[in-house]
Amino acid sequence: MSQWIYFFDLCGTAVFALSGALAAGKHRMDPFGVIVLASVTAIGGGSIRDALIGATPVFWIRDPNYIIVILATVLACLVLVRKPHKLPTLTLPVADALGLALFTVIGAEKALLMGLSGMIAVVMGLITGVGGGIIRDLLCRQIPMVLRTEIYATASIVGGICYTLSLAVGMDSMTSMFIAMISILIIRLSAIRWHLSLPAFDLKTKRI
Amino acid sequence: MSQWIYFFDLCGTAVFALSGALAAGKHRMDPFGVIVLASVTAIGGGSIRDALIGATPVFWIRDPNYIIVILATVLACLVLVRKPHKLPTLTLPVADALGLALFTVIGAEKALLMGLSGMIAVVMGLITGVGGGIIRDLLCRQIPMVLRTEIYATASIVGGICYTLSLAVGMDSMTSMFIAMISILIIRLSAIRWHLSLPAFDLKTKRI
Amino acid sequence: MSQWIYFFDLCGTAVFALSGALAAGKHRMDPFGVIVLASVTAIGGGSIRDALIGATPVFWIRDPNYIIVILATVLACLVLVRKPHKLPTLTLPVADALGLALFTVIGAEKALLMGLSGMIAVVMGLITGVGGGIIRDLLCRQIPMVLRTEIYATASIVGGICYTLSLAVGMDSMTSMFIAMISILIIRLSAIRWHLSLPAFDLKTKRI
Repeated sequence: MSQWIYFFDLCGTAVFALSGALAAGKHRMDPFGVIVLASVTAIGGGSIRDALIGATPVFWIRDPNYIIVILATVLACLVLVRKPHKLPTLTLPVADALGLALFTVIGAEKALLMGLSGMIAVVMGLITGVGGGIIRDLLCRQIPMVLRTEIYATASIVGGICYTLSLAVGMDSMTSMFIAMISILIIRLSAIRWHLSLPAFDLKTKRI
Repeated sequence: MSQWIYFFDLCGTAVFALSGALAAGKHRMDPFGVIVLASVTAIGGGSIRDALIGATPVFWIRDPNYIIVILATVLACLVLVRKPHKLPTLTLPVADALGLALFTVIGAEKALLMGLSGMIAVVMGLITGVGGGIIRDLLCRQIPMVLRTEIYATASIVGGICYTLSLAVGMDSMTSMFIAMISILIIRLSAIRWHLSLPAFDLKTKRI
Repeated sequence: MSQWIYFFDLCGTAVFALSGALAAGKHRMDPFGVIVLASVTAIGGGSIRDALIGATPVFWIRDPNYIIVILATVLACLVLVRKPHKLPTLTLPVADALGLALFTVIGAEKALLMGLSGMIAVVMGLITGVGGGIIRDLLCRQIPMVLRTEIYATASIVGGICYTLSLAVGMDSMTSMFIAMISILIIRLSAIRWHLSLPAFDLKTKRI
């Protein structure tokens, strides 16, 4: 079972590293800059989580496979993604959504394994899921996706709640993970596809 | 006594969460985005402090009341603050100043309780006081208040020094806290009211 | 030997504090804002490194000399650097390059002393070397140097690899440090002088 979680974690790392590398390509960074941006996107959220929990040295220091997966992803991306006009415009948002789903569940799972409460597990899933993307967007001087009214943090929080509730009603770990990840992907991809958003909390537009 | 500190800490959390939620409202974020911005503003500075000191898991993981206070504040803000033209324009700066005063004192107090020196206590007060606001401003793509020439970091540093000096000359903890918080509020609110600033260190404007 | 490392560390701290103070001067910050920006530039990278490794309380909490060096540097900078037109335009980039060289080597050295692998040592050198500068640039709302196609992260990574390889082939610590720092300085200063850059990974410009 824990092998599956580990496998998912490495998949999420590769997906977020790809997301970071593609963002770096949009800003015309040099190869080592691509590695830096891919790395902070892929392991930034989990690093913040581990530093806050006190699980230090953080995960990627203890297990070199994460860095190796990132380097391999960046290398593949540099070699293969050379015809940007052949890339569907949704490649980056969809890669990002997949990473969000994987990392939210992994983060919540790790918090529960450490004996933390369900509420904190949802928060840790959120930090793991959105942390790396926020750092990526800050470094690229974009408004972080979390701040836009397209449903993003919402998807991660709902997914984290689905996961902890599924476990609470007695489902096994794999099924709970599957339910949570599917719910995150449906919410996030629907929001991208149909430009859905929750009603904004709006103090800018004057209403009488 | 420590109950008062705890009560002040929760008050500061609520005040900074409000400050974050109001900033989120100015950027038209969705409700869960409001929760994220309110949270990083309220617990960001203290989290950095605890991670640097090594007091992990950080305070809000050990005590769920902080998250509950933030959620309640955001909920109240979403429900009650619906008529922005009725909000005095100074609501956000004043809430921010109050949070700065409370958190500076709390941060310095926690450092002293851990046996750290007065100088480090001042730094920890500064990090606790301005950390969350810096992250909030970064996420909103505003120049952090700390960078503007309006007296901000100055207020926190002066307050931290007041606090450690008051304790050093033998005053009790409550009096020292009161003196420090009043001095921060006076400095910061005066700076806001009369647009005071210290002489800037200015390498941009050429002088002969 | 370790005295030399400590001396280099304090030199790097002063150099990066100067770099932060000069950046603050370009943004017309007040004296305490200058202290804040000089501090995050000088100890930001090392703080992230220590928090990730779990070496808490981080180095500057345990040893007050770092804060004292920063305060002295800022004071000297405020008093002495008052004629900006007399400052060569390359002062900031060159100070930054020197800090990058010193901190990369110090960061890699500390990782190796903790028994971490050569690959992680290179990463820790990179974080120590570029972390503070990234935070400085974020706070000043500049695109971090790491993101530009001028060779920056590259210099740190190459220097870290030089250092670990030099140690691996049996050179002593001082020689390895010297080789690594010289290689970083040559790469970085050449890149500044002749506007060198690696071929960018470019997904923005369409190519057919």
